[in-house]
Amino acid sequence: MKSIILAAAASLSVASAQGIPDEVKETADFLLRQGLEDRVGYQTTEDLTTEVGARLGGSEAEARARDWAVEHLEELGFSNVRIEEFTMPYWARDYEYAAIAEPFPQELHITALGNSVGTPEGGLTGEIVRFETLDDLIEAPMDNALRGKIVFVDEGMTRTQDGSGYGVAVRKRSGAANEGAKRGAIAALIRSVGTDEHRFPHTGGMRYEDGVRKIPTAALSFPDAEQLQRALERGPVSVTLDMAVETKQEVTSGNVIAEIPGQTDEIVVIGGHLDSWDLGTGAVDDGAGIGITTGAAKLILDHVNETNEKPLRTIRLVYWGAEEVGLLGARAYAEQHRDELSKHAVAAESDFGAREIWKMDTRFGEDKIGLGRDMIRVLAPAGVALGNNQAGGGPDVTPLRAMGVPVVTLRQNGWDYFDLHHTADDTFDKIDPDELAQNVAVYAAFTWMAANTPGGFRADDAATPSE
Amino acid sequence: MKSIILAAAASLSVASAQGIPDEVKETADFLLRQGLEDRVGYQTTEDLTTEVGARLGGSEAEARARDWAVEHLEELGFSNVRIEEFTMPYWARDYEYAAIAEPFPQELHITALGNSVGTPEGGLTGEIVRFETLDDLIEAPMDNALRGKIVFVDEGMTRTQDGSGYGVAVRKRSGAANEGAKRGAIAALIRSVGTDEHRFPHTGGMRYEDGVRKIPTAALSFPDAEQLQRALERGPVSVTLDMAVETKQEVTSGNVIAEIPGQTDEIVVIGGHLDSWDLGTGAVDDGAGIGITTGAAKLILDHVNETNEKPLRTIRLVYWGAEEVGLLGARAYAEQHRDELSKHAVAAESDFGAREIWKMDTRFGEDKIGLGRDMIRVLAPAGVALGNNQAGGGPDVTPLRAMGVPVVTLRQNGWDYFDLHHTADDTFDKIDPDELAQNVAVYAAFTWMAANTPGGFRADDAATPSE
Ligand SMILES: [Zn+2]
Ligand SMILES: [Zn+2]
Ligand SMILES: [Zn+2]
Ligand SMILES: [Zn+2]
Repeated sequence: MKSIILAAAASLSVASAQGIPDEVKETADFLLRQGLEDRVGYQTTEDLTTEVGARLGGSEAEARARDWAVEHLEELGFSNVRIEEFTMPYWARDYEYAAIAEPFPQELHITALGNSVGTPEGGLTGEIVRFETLDDLIEAPMDNALRGKIVFVDEGMTRTQDGSGYGVAVRKRSGAANEGAKRGAIAALIRSVGTDEHRFPHTGGMRYEDGVRKIPTAALSFPDAEQLQRALERGPVSVTLDMAVETKQEVTSGNVIAEIPGQTDEIVVIGGHLDSWDLGTGAVDDGAGIGITTGAAKLILDHVNETNEKPLRTIRLVYWGAEEVGLLGARAYAEQHRDELSKHAVAAESDFGAREIWKMDTRFGEDKIGLGRDMIRVLAPAGVALGNNQAGGGPDVTPLRAMGVPVVTLRQNGWDYFDLHHTADDTFDKIDPDELAQNVAVYAAFTWMAANTPGGFRADDAATPSE
Repeated sequence: MKSIILAAAASLSVASAQGIPDEVKETADFLLRQGLEDRVGYQTTEDLTTEVGARLGGSEAEARARDWAVEHLEELGFSNVRIEEFTMPYWARDYEYAAIAEPFPQELHITALGNSVGTPEGGLTGEIVRFETLDDLIEAPMDNALRGKIVFVDEGMTRTQDGSGYGVAVRKRSGAANEGAKRGAIAALIRSVGTDEHRFPHTGGMRYEDGVRKIPTAALSFPDAEQLQRALERGPVSVTLDMAVETKQEVTSGNVIAEIPGQTDEIVVIGGHLDSWDLGTGAVDDGAGIGITTGAAKLILDHVNETNEKPLRTIRLVYWGAEEVGLLGARAYAEQHRDELSKHAVAAESDFGAREIWKMDTRFGEDKIGLGRDMIRVLAPAGVALGNNQAGGGPDVTPLRAMGVPVVTLRQNGWDYFDLHHTADDTFDKIDPDELAQNVAVYAAFTWMAANTPGGFRADDAATPSE
């Protein structure tokens, strides 16, 4: 056993010679161990979710979140703290109600899907036509057989550690309304995209297809989907749906930015999204990501201040605005920083709750994949294994990735993330401070290495920025 | 080992000679084993909670539940199926809203406590004064220090198997408003009486003390109580409360009754309560009790029909109405059957969810305690142990107990009962069919023994009914 460890250590130092310098890894290791004791991250999440609470993209509450963020980041001692504003269309739920009308009158717990139109005033009533899956609806004939009906897409979601069940299930959030409308339906209900069995409907954004009639659409909680299914087993069921929404053409939102200045004009971006859905207080989505990346950056800031040694690259902490309603902050960031994107060395967003990181995926140049292996040597003691080189990087990093910026996903255990996701039950009390601290530790160590690895993470033949 | 079993069997037959006849125990054992496979109980709970749903005492939905019950009980083949009406005052929630007004504006999830008055139209706003426990409020001086304030009694509830944490915690449901009002408060909030950590406020009845000003009172969900506490750690907090309720002087409710006629005029009563709170569909409280006792009675009915042998005593299945709002059905039953109470041999209500029965408490005459030991010989294979002789018998049995009717409590595992109790999340999907069947089995075996044990369960020197 000992000889294996020695051999590993030997190969480590060989790899280091061509990759991440030993002193960088040593500092990263120091940050990792410090991070496991961190409470700044947890406190940041607590402050945001308590002092602001829910903060829908474009709302007055999101504006208060930006003010809170600027104050918080300045207090922590970051540089260049600023809000970068952008404008956006606004959608908010006003009122929502559903009930079985016949034959078993009773209320159903629903929530409008983001961007849904409302019903006519006073609501609408229609017979339910249930589809086991979205594909069953897609395969249904286009013969107006659903005219006057309400479609109910009753597809479930599989619980997985990596959250892969979401990608499959989430299609119905837009699909039910679009495919229903094409066939004459007057409204669309879905079983919530979620894995819990509590009476919380899950909201989430939907998009109408161009040229398709817009029909109101909402999600039923798990118990209500089960109830509707049981009612349907007994015969025809009609449901009343009454929803009102509020929209505005143009409101102001913004990204909040803070930095630890580096020695070069290159940039490493980490962050989370500041907005949340309106139902919960946005703790696991994404107060946690805000806390995790702030805690990590603050650990690095303290180290930089103590040693008086700047990182090679600027570490930029970004709190994206208006993520939930269509990655609007992410798009604005990519647009506003277009000229600077070639200087973005790597980007990573934390947006998957507060449970422990168990894997690191990268998207590095093919000749730089070894840097991921190198990083894992430092991160492994925290329980992180190396994944693949097809990282997504997090939703708000998507536009950067599309522009060629290398990205990393520090993958968290998402086993119960979709129990709370986009529900009223997404509240601070669900977060374990030690698990959140593991995230802070891994982000701090990763970010330090990302900011101090010479040569960066793009393929050497790619257009790399000069230093 | 074998010799121990033989010895036990020998002592069993000695006990039997003075207690429950062997052939009665044999049939009880047969019913127990049949009951473990039962699905009538589960189906009954499904039908009630699906086809009626929530059914607040005195509401139109409760009336539909009675109609459903009559049809269901007649279909199952019971005799003398009937509704015994009574009148009652009516209370219902109309509208409820709470929010932190200052300094962190955000909505709080509350629910009005049953019988609470509403707020003035447009709501009221006051500074929160938090009390860690109800006793802290009771000990606060009577000097009008709470004038214009909203009291917040933040007392928690201990999770226990036997539900004993409830008795302690439930005092605050009336106490917060009464003790707050005595000290000048304008409203009272409590941390929900419950053991879950989800965003479901728990409702439940409260009573105003005579001569005390009536102030509106509501329960916060666990996450909202935590949130309010965190806000208070940061300084003064004011809350807006807006509630409207509807009351009527006199509406109709009723108990539903079905029987298996016996050979004598003595009666054994089992049942559950038909009404529920308005938030959930009343599955664990008390659709389960309705299902369990109906399944048990149906097993006995089938046996009686097959063997053409009547039980000694009439088995009367009672679905009490309007339990949640003050045991109104129970009181009406005791009143309407006053002349018959001396013929009630024993009574037992199932009203504690659908988890397995683990203990049997009795309240028999002191010289009849041996009958409890005798019954346990039959029930033990289902996992039931003997408890004490101070049984409550269930809430709707309270007035009968007070009139000297022997009672039994078949105690269920209540470990997570108060997670769901009186919340929107009390829905059918939470019930395990096999656990419910264990209840059916135990009730069927118990009820058969209760109906066929000569001499009954009152002390021999008590005024026992003639046969
Ligand atoms: Zn998110
Ligand atoms: Zn989200
Ligand atoms: Zn009950
Ligand atoms: Zn109850």
